[in-house]
Amino acid sequence: MPDHALLHKLSAFLSPHEIAADAEALLTDQRRRYTGEAAAAVLPDSVAQVQRIVRFCAEHRIPITPQGGNTGLCGGAVPQGGVLLNLSRLNRIRLVEVADNAITVEAGAVLQTVQQAAAAAGRLFPLSLASEGSCQIGGNIATNAGGLNVLRYGSMRDLVLGLEVVLPDGELVSHLAPLHKNTTGYDLRHLFIGSEGTLGVITAATLKLFARPQSTATAWVGVDSIEAAVALLTLMQGQFAERLCSFELLSAWALELSARYSGTPAPLAAEWHVLLELNDSLPAQDLDGSLAECLMQNGFDNAVLAQSGSERQMLWRLRENVSAAQRDLGASIKHDIAVPIARVAEWVRQTGAALEAAFPGIQIVVFGHLGDGSLHYNTFLPGVLDQEVYRYEAAVNEVVYRHTLACEGTIAAEHGIGQVKNHWLPQVRTPAEIALMRAVKAQLDPHQLMNPGKLLPPM
Amino acid sequence: MPDHALLHKLSAFLSPHEIAADAEALLTDQRRRYTGEAAAAVLPDSVAQVQRIVRFCAEHRIPITPQGGNTGLCGGAVPQGGVLLNLSRLNRIRLVEVADNAITVEAGAVLQTVQQAAAAAGRLFPLSLASEGSCQIGGNIATNAGGLNVLRYGSMRDLVLGLEVVLPDGELVSHLAPLHKNTTGYDLRHLFIGSEGTLGVITAATLKLFARPQSTATAWVGVDSIEAAVALLTLMQGQFAERLCSFELLSAWALELSARYSGTPAPLAAEWHVLLELNDSLPAQDLDGSLAECLMQNGFDNAVLAQSGSERQMLWRLRENVSAAQRDLGASIKHDIAVPIARVAEWVRQTGAALEAAFPGIQIVVFGHLGDGSLHYNTFLPGVLDQEVYRYEAAVNEVVYRHTLACEGTIAAEHGIGQVKNHWLPQVRTPAEIALMRAVKAQLDPHQLMNPGKLLPPM
Repeated sequence: MPDHALLHKLSAFLSPHEIAADAEALLTDQRRRYTGEAAAAVLPDSVAQVQRIVRFCAEHRIPITPQGGNTGLCGGAVPQGGVLLNLSRLNRIRLVEVADNAITVEAGAVLQTVQQAAAAAGRLFPLSLASEGSCQIGGNIATNAGGLNVLRYGSMRDLVLGLEVVLPDGELVSHLAPLHKNTTGYDLRHLFIGSEGTLGVITAATLKLFARPQSTATAWVGVDSIEAAVALLTLMQGQFAERLCSFELLSAWALELSARYSGTPAPLAAEWHVLLELNDSLPAQDLDGSLAECLMQNGFDNAVLAQSGSERQMLWRLRENVSAAQRDLGASIKHDIAVPIARVAEWVRQTGAALEAAFPGIQIVVFGHLGDGSLHYNTFLPGVLDQEVYRYEAAVNEVVYRHTLACEGTIAAEHGIGQVKNHWLPQVRTPAEIALMRAVKAQLDPHQLMNPGKLLPPM
Repeated sequence: MPDHALLHKLSAFLSPHEIAADAEALLTDQRRRYTGEAAAAVLPDSVAQVQRIVRFCAEHRIPITPQGGNTGLCGGAVPQGGVLLNLSRLNRIRLVEVADNAITVEAGAVLQTVQQAAAAAGRLFPLSLASEGSCQIGGNIATNAGGLNVLRYGSMRDLVLGLEVVLPDGELVSHLAPLHKNTTGYDLRHLFIGSEGTLGVITAATLKLFARPQSTATAWVGVDSIEAAVALLTLMQGQFAERLCSFELLSAWALELSARYSGTPAPLAAEWHVLLELNDSLPAQDLDGSLAECLMQNGFDNAVLAQSGSERQMLWRLRENVSAAQRDLGASIKHDIAVPIARVAEWVRQTGAALEAAFPGIQIVVFGHLGDGSLHYNTFLPGVLDQEVYRYEAAVNEVVYRHTLACEGTIAAEHGIGQVKNHWLPQVRTPAEIALMRAVKAQLDPHQLMNPGKLLPPM
């Protein structure tokens, strides 16, 4: 609930439009899993205003939760009191420099807007994910977002050349020059990337650009097993190398749900489905021909190649609608894991068996970015009423994460930690590592004001 | 000078061959610029032995300097007392996993050995630099090495999937699984990459592999100005994208020196020279034809394309011999800077003019990796006797670095900080950043035992 005395103090240095009239709308995340609270919600217009807000909060020991598009899946941008600092108005494209293959944008710029600005300069900004129409660059950086093109272009971490950050005491640190090589001391940029707003407020970034794809080939391939899908991946990487930009896996059931939801028939029948895409920066490369030949020669003949742009879109819609299609099944317990690609099959088999033993009748939707070893693994408990499902969350997670760690995997591939997994951190990082994280935090944010309750485990 | 009491204590847990008989040989860096001292030099056989050594030194408060191939250019691996910990014997290739496009190697593995192990698995490990026959992976990681292929594949930082590190108290932290996506808390891996042995001892790493190039096209292009070279770079990146793997710049004088030294005529006459290379992971791509056509159509007609493997090697030798060719000129004051590519021309012009004004007759060899904005900029003072040159080092650096910072550049592109540039760090990082670096250091290494005198500025 709003704190009127605080709002009054803030209005001393913020314009009326920099104070949210309806803070409520910003307190619940996009998928309505978490609702937080804030004494005030502010939307500063400029970096200088961000500094003023942060300095004010530091002086008055008021917690701050930075927020971008609020599309995160781990509740990282849902405040637990204090000031909600929404970056949406800080959304300029500051500079596109083609000679340096770089673009400098503010934190509140929507990912799609950045993609479009790159396109207008004849370049590609490759980060692509389901929420690209509303997620913001600052949040993408704060969570080290992944998505569909990581296989070729890397995660957000790999795309950042420089950052501008307001530290928890209000100081601005700016390193936005597009330097492709730089070795001046410990790399602090990568500390902020993925720090989920706990170390300061990212206000701008310089990002890498790439050449635009000029030719594309898209195939849907049916295989009998995940092992066969991994063999296909290895084949594609050996043959097409960086041309392979996406390699997505869907279980038969994931496809069935999505096909029904999309009103589109499944392109083919199989136990497991792969959607893969090649692209090339040179026009008129016969990618379709090479891909078809390679698939046939290697026995991957249960396959369909997109023959047109609309066929390609149709295939991608089947992949993209997997998430939406699951809503009809009720609430699910979601996971965002990665294991070494060579162990994905083992992980899926063992985790599925263990869950079925513990929760007979459990339903599992498996899909994700096999090219990166990263899977979304959503579990449904039929007969358990909607939100009641979350009573089983800890027990289901325990099984899923135990198997993930046994396969040398990670419990957080691309969605971050937020307030969902922070108590799991001591399972995946040693005490020395967590002590180092806390030392970094204490140095920058001695009063623990930046996004409290997120990322780091409770003390 | 060796400390016999210390050697005796070390021999209690080290085999005779793990204690260097001739420590002297390890105390001077490869180019004989720095000579250090050590009470003992050890070459452990295993990670467990590294842990024992580090634990022993921690208990007895003895400084440790980790050392790989000792090829660094900034004196980072030259000890200033204590124990010299050479990783050369820790040199196994532990695992190549093609499905994950990853290789796990120990710190002492020579870069070329890693390249060869990748090749044996049908893959490419792309880091390539002049000292690849003797530099070691641990040192490449500790200094975030760059080199010839950064344009396409990134610096060492971009090639590391995971690290195994012995912390300054002897604890082993191991994250070697080949995970392409992972967002579990602050990224500590990137703190160790580029930390120059000041935070712990890197003992192994999991590195990214890539498809092997199957077709190559190499061109030598003469241009009138750096501006024209930058225009050529932008053209090449727009046309050939990731196929462009090297884009090297040489001044006419750098080429003249190298041609004379190499006994090879210059391929063409021009003010500035570009050596560029395209490669493709598909065989039988007509890269030569496309490259020739693109150069001609865009007016870059003062150009030579390598018509054979030996012609290609000859062109590369001219580039690679630039360093060696300078030795005849006597000692030089070297710089390893980068500025935004769009500002390289401005930087070269302004810095050259300022140096000539301050040091009339100064000779400057300009060459480097224009594709990354990174230049080697070596200055000679004719008439100043060899080692006497270094009396002018601070004054020359002051001019060079002042102009670098004015162009938003970095004073350390790919050689690191070591003991050469640490006093410059406060000029390029804010007090808050240096305080954070010191806090990281204090947390991991409270007794300041790891590689003292390097990277961080003196207190």
